[in-house]
Amino acid sequence: MEEKKVAARIARGCRGIAAGELMAREAMIAKISAIYRLYGFEPLMTPSMEYVDALGKNLPEQSTPMAGIFALKDDDDEWIALRYDMTAPLARYVAQNRQNLPAIFRRYAIGPVWRMEKPGPGRFREFYQCDFDTVGSASPAADAEVCTILATAFSALGLENDFLISVSNRKILSGILETIGIKEDDGSGRHLTILRAIDKLDRLGLSGVRLLLGPGRKDESGDFTAGAHLDESQIEQICSFLSAGAESRQEVCANLEKLVEGSAIGLEGVAELRQMDALLESAGLSSRVVRFDPAIVRGLAYYTGIVYEATLTFEITDEKGEKRQFGAVAGGGRYDGLLSRFTKERVPATGASIGIDRLLSALIAKGVAKNEPPAGPVLVTVMDKEALPEYQKMVAELRSSGIRSELYLGTSGFRAQMKYADKRRSPAIIVAGSDEFAAGTVSIKDMYLGTELAKGISSREEWREQPAQVTVARSDMAAEIKKILQRYEI
Amino acid sequence: MEEKKVAARIARGCRGIAAGELMAREAMIAKISAIYRLYGFEPLMTPSMEYVDALGKNLPEQSTPMAGIFALKDDDDEWIALRYDMTAPLARYVAQNRQNLPAIFRRYAIGPVWRMEKPGPGRFREFYQCDFDTVGSASPAADAEVCTILATAFSALGLENDFLISVSNRKILSGILETIGIKEDDGSGRHLTILRAIDKLDRLGLSGVRLLLGPGRKDESGDFTAGAHLDESQIEQICSFLSAGAESRQEVCANLEKLVEGSAIGLEGVAELRQMDALLESAGLSSRVVRFDPAIVRGLAYYTGIVYEATLTFEITDEKGEKRQFGAVAGGGRYDGLLSRFTKERVPATGASIGIDRLLSALIAKGVAKNEPPAGPVLVTVMDKEALPEYQKMVAELRSSGIRSELYLGTSGFRAQMKYADKRRSPAIIVAGSDEFAAGTVSIKDMYLGTELAKGISSREEWREQPAQVTVARSDMAAEIKKILQRYEI
Repeated sequence: MEEKKVAARIARGCRGIAAGELMAREAMIAKISAIYRLYGFEPLMTPSMEYVDALGKNLPEQSTPMAGIFALKDDDDEWIALRYDMTAPLARYVAQNRQNLPAIFRRYAIGPVWRMEKPGPGRFREFYQCDFDTVGSASPAADAEVCTILATAFSALGLENDFLISVSNRKILSGILETIGIKEDDGSGRHLTILRAIDKLDRLGLSGVRLLLGPGRKDESGDFTAGAHLDESQIEQICSFLSAGAESRQEVCANLEKLVEGSAIGLEGVAELRQMDALLESAGLSSRVVRFDPAIVRGLAYYTGIVYEATLTFEITDEKGEKRQFGAVAGGGRYDGLLSRFTKERVPATGASIGIDRLLSALIAKGVAKNEPPAGPVLVTVMDKEALPEYQKMVAELRSSGIRSELYLGTSGFRAQMKYADKRRSPAIIVAGSDEFAAGTVSIKDMYLGTELAKGISSREEWREQPAQVTVARSDMAAEIKKILQRYEI
Repeated sequence: MEEKKVAARIARGCRGIAAGELMAREAMIAKISAIYRLYGFEPLMTPSMEYVDALGKNLPEQSTPMAGIFALKDDDDEWIALRYDMTAPLARYVAQNRQNLPAIFRRYAIGPVWRMEKPGPGRFREFYQCDFDTVGSASPAADAEVCTILATAFSALGLENDFLISVSNRKILSGILETIGIKEDDGSGRHLTILRAIDKLDRLGLSGVRLLLGPGRKDESGDFTAGAHLDESQIEQICSFLSAGAESRQEVCANLEKLVEGSAIGLEGVAELRQMDALLESAGLSSRVVRFDPAIVRGLAYYTGIVYEATLTFEITDEKGEKRQFGAVAGGGRYDGLLSRFTKERVPATGASIGIDRLLSALIAKGVAKNEPPAGPVLVTVMDKEALPEYQKMVAELRSSGIRSELYLGTSGFRAQMKYADKRRSPAIIVAGSDEFAAGTVSIKDMYLGTELAKGISSREEWREQPAQVTVARSDMAAEIKKILQRYEI
């Protein structure tokens, strides 16, 4: 009776990460978290899941409740969901533990977040973020520091001249909307529709954004996105806002000031940008590194003030074979209202999130990190099954000398063991049979040196003739192996 | 209009982990994974979620489908679930990628797993495991190595004389069942009911297990667990099996051999244990460290042969104030059938899993790891808001000297800043106002030394008189701070 087999499929939009990438990733994360720590942040790990009401609905592109998140009912019949970012759980944590935390709480967090979105090249449903946030400070110095930290992190990773941090202030957009007669909290969701239209400027260009601000837009696949139904003069005003950018930060501030004349919130936003400018200057961050860009709004609903987006400026060839700039790898902003979902107290907060997966692929594309299968362990081959305890002793001795090694645990002969060592990327193998046992020696083969020659060799006798092989006293085994490992800097 | 507030609650059975514990945990994980690597294992990260059919139903205590797992339907209308262990996803991964993997695949994996079980003290719905597995080897040497790795890991963590690894073989239980006329694959699930009854020996004692093997058992809360409905002589035979333990591994083998006389599978199980015994001897693992214990069966359904359970043997005082041994911190076994759910090829595999959360609490209970809030950053206080750029420069200078530090980003006066530094556990603070700026100096306070005296001090003038304070040239600031950090080994 044949059993029906289960298909070995990975869940949609998910991926596995193998040793080479994991190790590059770990090294990158270690560098980033060292910088977060240097700046006074401490680590915190909140659970992967939260009650849905605690998470709130802040995802971009999602209008219906529960859309975009992985949610289920627990055994208490309550809705829980995997976190879609690290900020919403932080807000819940701070609201729940505020009395035990310092008045200003600086935490970093590294971990996966989950979004049930359409997967695509480089777009996964489980991806990793590396966040830092300062909760409890309304000072623009906290916002300026976000830029410093991002700049320091990118430089430490070898991207000194390859990034640009774009800064804007949502208050200015609110000011613009005020001047064209759109109220933020009129319950229509129109404010968010406009925000998300602007957030697509990069992808759709000004003409696409115009459609989304007006009647709506049909994409190539025929899907229709409803528009904000603004009239022509309103759209014009928003487009002037989007085009208010300039090389100099002060010039951007001057342009924006004119546009929000008469709006208190808008002018407040410009004043905050001016403060940022002064702080960035004194922190040594010129407009070559941190620019002001009105078109930056960020998709998440919870931002209330300064927002940031960090892009990498070098060119890559994308999946369609076209050259383009690498794009955004980090983003964030000030979210002074997020805590007040839970508490009466208004707790200001600001922070940013680095996308681990995207940043790592940037480092690899740039050649400052490598995604290569790592060197394997030294392999102690088995020539004589009766001598297993002897081989066990060899591998135990190598390991106590700190040499990464393994005993061959299969049933195949010498040739298959050589192949196995190759596939494992073992730098060296140990060979010992009755001759070596009698003579008190072992044979050691440098596998990297011998790889070319070894191809096509099928017997142990032939292999003995190879130049990459030495026979040494059993007592010199570990020392000899160490020489080989040093040769390859393993 | 008062907005309704959301309750800031953590999801049931979940917990947050703060800096002190996270850092102890990271150090522990680093030691464990260094040992896994030394033994030739390489890291692999599979996604948190898998298709439910790929995971299979292997959880102990769960009879109904989906019970015990966090499952939901994705947007393709397929059931996906958070993994309940790291072994089922490994089986899926190997089945899917076998052609690209070495014939023997040794991987380790560290990450969360999720089970929707009743939470309790130390029992969470999201917990971390640190697994290593050897896929593709049927050799008992792979099983013996599991014991060596666990012993090496516990010793490296400072638990040299505090652990015991118990080993058994499911084949022997199958042999026992064969001798009493119970077939493994008769579709009744009786075999699993018996397995799980035995797995509760620790908690329920022999009398409780007898009830579960017979008519069933009502617990203190009145919940009834159905029994396996064995007759008296069958139960007797299983109890003899459970009592076949002895100090010497060879004696256990002799006892078991008598009990499974006439059962091929049972005798095969005993023969494998004898091989293990020889390999453990030659690896230097005496029965004081690795014992054979027939009562070890492990709850997970997928084990087919040798099973392991590592317990810590020192006493702790539990949540009820009673002294008891710490208990199990790792477990595993051979699961030669798990891959054949996916593939025609039968791929043998063995491995074990260390429970990160439980092991860390053991290290803390034993005093070999500490869960203490770490030292905070040096705080640059703000005496004069107009001088913010000056303070910014100070903190920038400290950071470029590698000193973990932060600028005070709140709005409060000196006293609140001192309190804040205390709460942050800052080892030192920097104080500079117009006097210091004029003189080209800064004042530095050693906060740990000054903590006692500082209580009750309310003005900056009084504070100047404290002995823990020095005033140094501005250019000596970083060097002076380094002295304080060295004093406290930060």
